[in-house]
Amino acid sequence: MPRKIALAYSGGLDTSVMCRWLQEMHEAEVVTFTADIGQGAEVEPARAKAEALGVREIFIEDLTEAFVADYVFPMFRANALYEGEYLLGTSIARPLIAKRLVEVAAATGADAIAHGATGKGNDQVRFELAAYALNPDIEVIAPWRSPEWNLHSREACMAYAAERQIPVDFQRSGGSPYSMDANLLHISYEGGGLEDPGNPPDEDMWRWSVAPEDAPDTPLDLDIDFAGGDPSALDGEAMSPATLLRRLNEVGGAHGVGRSDIVENRYVGMKSRGCYETPGGTILLKAHRAMESLTLDREAAHLKDELMPRYAALIYNGYWFSPERVALQALIDETQKVVNGRVRVRLYKGAVSVIGRWSDSHSLYDEGVVTFEDDAGAYQQEDATGFIRLNALRLRLAARRG
Amino acid sequence: MPRKIALAYSGGLDTSVMCRWLQEMHEAEVVTFTADIGQGAEVEPARAKAEALGVREIFIEDLTEAFVADYVFPMFRANALYEGEYLLGTSIARPLIAKRLVEVAAATGADAIAHGATGKGNDQVRFELAAYALNPDIEVIAPWRSPEWNLHSREACMAYAAERQIPVDFQRSGGSPYSMDANLLHISYEGGGLEDPGNPPDEDMWRWSVAPEDAPDTPLDLDIDFAGGDPSALDGEAMSPATLLRRLNEVGGAHGVGRSDIVENRYVGMKSRGCYETPGGTILLKAHRAMESLTLDREAAHLKDELMPRYAALIYNGYWFSPERVALQALIDETQKVVNGRVRVRLYKGAVSVIGRWSDSHSLYDEGVVTFEDDAGAYQQEDATGFIRLNALRLRLAARRG
Amino acid sequence: MPRKIALAYSGGLDTSVMCRWLQEMHEAEVVTFTADIGQGAEVEPARAKAEALGVREIFIEDLTEAFVADYVFPMFRANALYEGEYLLGTSIARPLIAKRLVEVAAATGADAIAHGATGKGNDQVRFELAAYALNPDIEVIAPWRSPEWNLHSREACMAYAAERQIPVDFQRSGGSPYSMDANLLHISYEGGGLEDPGNPPDEDMWRWSVAPEDAPDTPLDLDIDFAGGDPSALDGEAMSPATLLRRLNEVGGAHGVGRSDIVENRYVGMKSRGCYETPGGTILLKAHRAMESLTLDREAAHLKDELMPRYAALIYNGYWFSPERVALQALIDETQKVVNGRVRVRLYKGAVSVIGRWSDSHSLYDEGVVTFEDDAGAYQQEDATGFIRLNALRLRLAARRG
Amino acid sequence: MPRKIALAYSGGLDTSVMCRWLQEMHEAEVVTFTADIGQGAEVEPARAKAEALGVREIFIEDLTEAFVADYVFPMFRANALYEGEYLLGTSIARPLIAKRLVEVAAATGADAIAHGATGKGNDQVRFELAAYALNPDIEVIAPWRSPEWNLHSREACMAYAAERQIPVDFQRSGGSPYSMDANLLHISYEGGGLEDPGNPPDEDMWRWSVAPEDAPDTPLDLDIDFAGGDPSALDGEAMSPATLLRRLNEVGGAHGVGRSDIVENRYVGMKSRGCYETPGGTILLKAHRAMESLTLDREAAHLKDELMPRYAALIYNGYWFSPERVALQALIDETQKVVNGRVRVRLYKGAVSVIGRWSDSHSLYDEGVVTFEDDAGAYQQEDATGFIRLNALRLRLAARRG
Repeated sequence: MPRKIALAYSGGLDTSVMCRWLQEMHEAEVVTFTADIGQGAEVEPARAKAEALGVREIFIEDLTEAFVADYVFPMFRANALYEGEYLLGTSIARPLIAKRLVEVAAATGADAIAHGATGKGNDQVRFELAAYALNPDIEVIAPWRSPEWNLHSREACMAYAAERQIPVDFQRSGGSPYSMDANLLHISYEGGGLEDPGNPPDEDMWRWSVAPEDAPDTPLDLDIDFAGGDPSALDGEAMSPATLLRRLNEVGGAHGVGRSDIVENRYVGMKSRGCYETPGGTILLKAHRAMESLTLDREAAHLKDELMPRYAALIYNGYWFSPERVALQALIDETQKVVNGRVRVRLYKGAVSVIGRWSDSHSLYDEGVVTFEDDAGAYQQEDATGFIRLNALRLRLAARRG
Repeated sequence: MPRKIALAYSGGLDTSVMCRWLQEMHEAEVVTFTADIGQGAEVEPARAKAEALGVREIFIEDLTEAFVADYVFPMFRANALYEGEYLLGTSIARPLIAKRLVEVAAATGADAIAHGATGKGNDQVRFELAAYALNPDIEVIAPWRSPEWNLHSREACMAYAAERQIPVDFQRSGGSPYSMDANLLHISYEGGGLEDPGNPPDEDMWRWSVAPEDAPDTPLDLDIDFAGGDPSALDGEAMSPATLLRRLNEVGGAHGVGRSDIVENRYVGMKSRGCYETPGGTILLKAHRAMESLTLDREAAHLKDELMPRYAALIYNGYWFSPERVALQALIDETQKVVNGRVRVRLYKGAVSVIGRWSDSHSLYDEGVVTFEDDAGAYQQEDATGFIRLNALRLRLAARRG
Repeated sequence: MPRKIALAYSGGLDTSVMCRWLQEMHEAEVVTFTADIGQGAEVEPARAKAEALGVREIFIEDLTEAFVADYVFPMFRANALYEGEYLLGTSIARPLIAKRLVEVAAATGADAIAHGATGKGNDQVRFELAAYALNPDIEVIAPWRSPEWNLHSREACMAYAAERQIPVDFQRSGGSPYSMDANLLHISYEGGGLEDPGNPPDEDMWRWSVAPEDAPDTPLDLDIDFAGGDPSALDGEAMSPATLLRRLNEVGGAHGVGRSDIVENRYVGMKSRGCYETPGGTILLKAHRAMESLTLDREAAHLKDELMPRYAALIYNGYWFSPERVALQALIDETQKVVNGRVRVRLYKGAVSVIGRWSDSHSLYDEGVVTFEDDAGAYQQEDATGFIRLNALRLRLAARRG
Repeated sequence: MPRKIALAYSGGLDTSVMCRWLQEMHEAEVVTFTADIGQGAEVEPARAKAEALGVREIFIEDLTEAFVADYVFPMFRANALYEGEYLLGTSIARPLIAKRLVEVAAATGADAIAHGATGKGNDQVRFELAAYALNPDIEVIAPWRSPEWNLHSREACMAYAAERQIPVDFQRSGGSPYSMDANLLHISYEGGGLEDPGNPPDEDMWRWSVAPEDAPDTPLDLDIDFAGGDPSALDGEAMSPATLLRRLNEVGGAHGVGRSDIVENRYVGMKSRGCYETPGGTILLKAHRAMESLTLDREAAHLKDELMPRYAALIYNGYWFSPERVALQALIDETQKVVNGRVRVRLYKGAVSVIGRWSDSHSLYDEGVVTFEDDAGAYQQEDATGFIRLNALRLRLAARRG
């Protein structure tokens, strides 16, 4: 009886070729797993392709709601931003796919999983760390890292496919010169002309957003409600996590919001250049911070800010299922109970700005205290004298030392 | 012989009244100190006003270059941002003014200093902590916190001035309903209609920038050179720190760049709402991060990111002249030696985006390693297997525990 | 009808005098609250003293179990140590006393609380921050800081008491020249000859422990079991939190364990010198760390270590009932679920050492992996090559830059 | 012409065999480098052994002073302690040896270096990360990780040596069942019976210290002077870094000071159990903290405490020559300028306690401020009211929200 391998299968050229290669090289029965995480392409066509490859156990699932509710939203509670710029769109999807793939392997009796990520990137790490954390005895096959894998160029893959009559859709990616990844949170671009960090991307690279120059001349104002730190409604209309994020992507993209173009540090030790479109995420980060600004205690907020870069790096590096991420999440979630209310944002020509925030139940803003007008004794200005003098005491003693 | 008090004097209504009040209440000789830190108003007229108040020792100084070179630029090396939004424009100016005022006091034999900040805000803290750190034995007089001070409204001040024939410029602030503060880094607005955080500011509040809607339809591209982490040239033209920041303010303001509208946490314990225009600073932060993305080591960058919120809070809270700020600065400055090169930014309708970055001397980006194309052995993909497996080991051992 | 004030009442000279002073100065009815938190003195005698002072509502409570279970043990989960040395014995008791006092005030209709801490120390801060966090509208009366209070010396207090025939126990503190504080976690000493940090304490100062030189010549070995990060049994015998800590104090003290003599930084800005005896706490910290060393994931442990100084400072400074302490506690507690097992410690002449640790259920130590002997493939040494090479990559790229 | 390899050569069995193996397997000319870093064995005998192996370029160096002055002392400025227990004795020696070996390679024209560390431990990582950081193009040969290496047991090594008549000293390590490492800072033990973390070591394992039970019944008091954060004199006698550390090891060891027995987390992902003797380091850590307690500003000290675990992990993991360690060192060193004075410690039966500290020039302790006696107005107790009230403000506003 041949061994069984569960493959993360997109239905595209690379993983179709990989499916056959695993069948041949590893003399294995391959189980395919294809997930809809909002990448924008149909997943159902993967079924016929897998069947044509002789796959008998085919798993196709819509994970969009789980993706947003259990991964994207918890991450946004932290205001996570990698290296000050990157909203972690690719990073946050990998753990979920790895988790389901490990579960598919368990359900089908496969003792190995395989994925199509290369040996230079972060995705292999995210994928494999998650898999090992969930099943320490799983074997991971990463064909791109295999000495036997010799299909390193698109041409080699296509020749291999043609030779074996693998039915691939040659139009996939529309001949894009970029390496792309998409899910409900974002779409990313790497490679091609982007490999020169001095070279701006061509305008036609971007898929989700119009150029700011082409965005409407009229701003769009949008109300976002938060409950327990998570967005729950748009313009007063409650909606599911995935629906809400999809809507934000639409309006954000239409207003040119969410593009970024950065040089980032990969976990494997090199710098790379990537471009990202994250329209909904860009809006959410701004709005969530504004909601916290009204409802979150100062020191809790500062503590979160200090821990955020580490939390973001954990997700970037693939440690979603690690004890340290879980511990940080416990801290973050503890702070979010009070993050309830409404934020109004304005989208205009690529920019998001906050133009109002309200929280009937949880605002810590007290106009009676802060006012420049008479505060009727809500605050005693003379308290500041002692406050300053004792905060200064150690500085004065040091200054006396000379 | 009367005691002598050095007063931070703007020439405006409040500090003119305060000057007289100190002369009367404290039976003191007042020495005035007026600094040009780029607030945009002439400082020289303060001389005649001080003379009219009977002041005999009048200090008027242009501190713009020192302000930018010794305070603003060091702070920007840290990518400092308070609570994710505020560029610390007011905070960073206070230590310099306090320092010079303490020096003026020493030079004139004054044993006290006085300032016009209220008892509710951050500025009193910043001012006094700096003063105490530099002269532990100085006395600080903060009339606004004095039980004897009863000029809490503008009307009371004006009546006091009229009664004593104090020549004040009644047009100062143009009757703005906002409390404002300006220097070469920013202008801020508080109070008035802003006290309701659900209420957006009137468009005519903003002084330095056009509305994004009114900005040019054509983007402006700008090259910023960095040397040792500090900006040194614009479009290839070397210029002094203050000149450079002034130019950035001009082009940024013309393109609607640098507005922000936030609720922030004051050191004295309350939340307040402020609006800020920081055109040049907004551009600089973006560009500096991009320059670092190319030249700074990953772990040095992450360490900076984790320490940044604390560094920003120190400056916000007034601890510029503290041992902990100095220690953090040593760390930050150590990392900046390699931050050399050029960044190209695009300004358009309120947004700043990075469209190129170069560093001949210090780039850590290696296209030969990162490329999707054949890398000629610069990177061995099989190294990733061991990297992942050992990073996963602790997770696997934990998973086995169950 | 007079106002009512709830007083934290020890039954000693100071707070007896304070009770009468409040009755007279504030024309108030005083409610007394006396807690047994293991200070080692009887609390019941406080009843007769309060009655003699005319107090009609007298609260006397045994809080020892709550103190250890809800305050001491949660703190030890964090391995909290202030400034590398201090086990926070005084700090951790204040929030509980403040909490009960605020509750007593609420139950009796008092709108103010009063305490006997001085204006120079940390205890006033801890006491009052806790009270304000629990009842923002409570009034706090700190007689020592009152301009009307003129009983600053022991002599003045005794004269005041004699004059008013207040029955105080003149032997209290046995005429100790030190200011002391005790509870089930520790006893502290300040003042007197300790005010010179170059001066060692007299041997007869110490109350809870023998001098190491006088400790038994034979070591004592002790097994401590942990469940969920908290100690649960000694030498296999399960016991309540307070009982367990009391026993550890006894055996620790008998072996000269737990003395420390430090200069510490007070929150109010000065350095002070204190001596502490914390026999049980010293043993617990060592044992808890050892239990974690076997059961806690590396990165979770390092995260805790990095956050510990901040957590300790929060407790030292009085922020037990703050959102940031609660958030940190959530993180810490999340990590402790796996901290189960047994640690064997040895007590000898003042030192505690670990001589064994076991965890059947939660050990992460895998002898099969770590062994110098043949590991039967549990670990592949060649994995280390890739691990090192990719961790080195950024360093190599930087070195090439030169 | 054969290639040339620079080998870190101890003169012992393992590296002697390795020398020959490199000569044979790699057909290489081997250059040996042997360093005295205070391991306690003579290094000069390595010369004859190397000669007997046909080595023509033999480097033998005394690095003890450089080791202590440039590695140990800078590390102790940070109060570095890995996982709360380990003084990093092995970790801190590797970078220096790697540095000199890379220099020897450069001087002799070798393009590779080799070391005798195994594939399971931390030392390989420390050694190689340092080498790559200093020479990105160096080749590193780690025979223990080589698939061709089949000398994994002592027996195999000895047979290989006998077969080739390699003159090794069979008494080396005295037949110790432990894997040991020694330098001027410490000696470590792993393996053998220590592989069971429930098993205490045999008393005869320890080499540098007497058992506490066998230590003198009379304590030893010792004065340590610090200059700029580094120890500079003992009992008033100035001495070189290595001399000072050697003396501390002697007196510490004689009093049973510095043993520890821990389970630690290796960088390669497993937990291991190690025993360490660090007599001098244990004394130094205690004394340095005490010196800082008197002279270092509170917030600078707390900042150091929070960064220490990360700094310690960097050294443990081998990142001495990384930008992040250098940046942290800049911060640490900046704080140490004021750490000057004298600390008196007492050694007794394994324990170190501080019994006095003085700093004429840099003490921040102000008896006049802290005293329980009349302070003549040096501190105004009423300042505490405002200090507490403003620190409480955010807590009160939150409590009002309910």
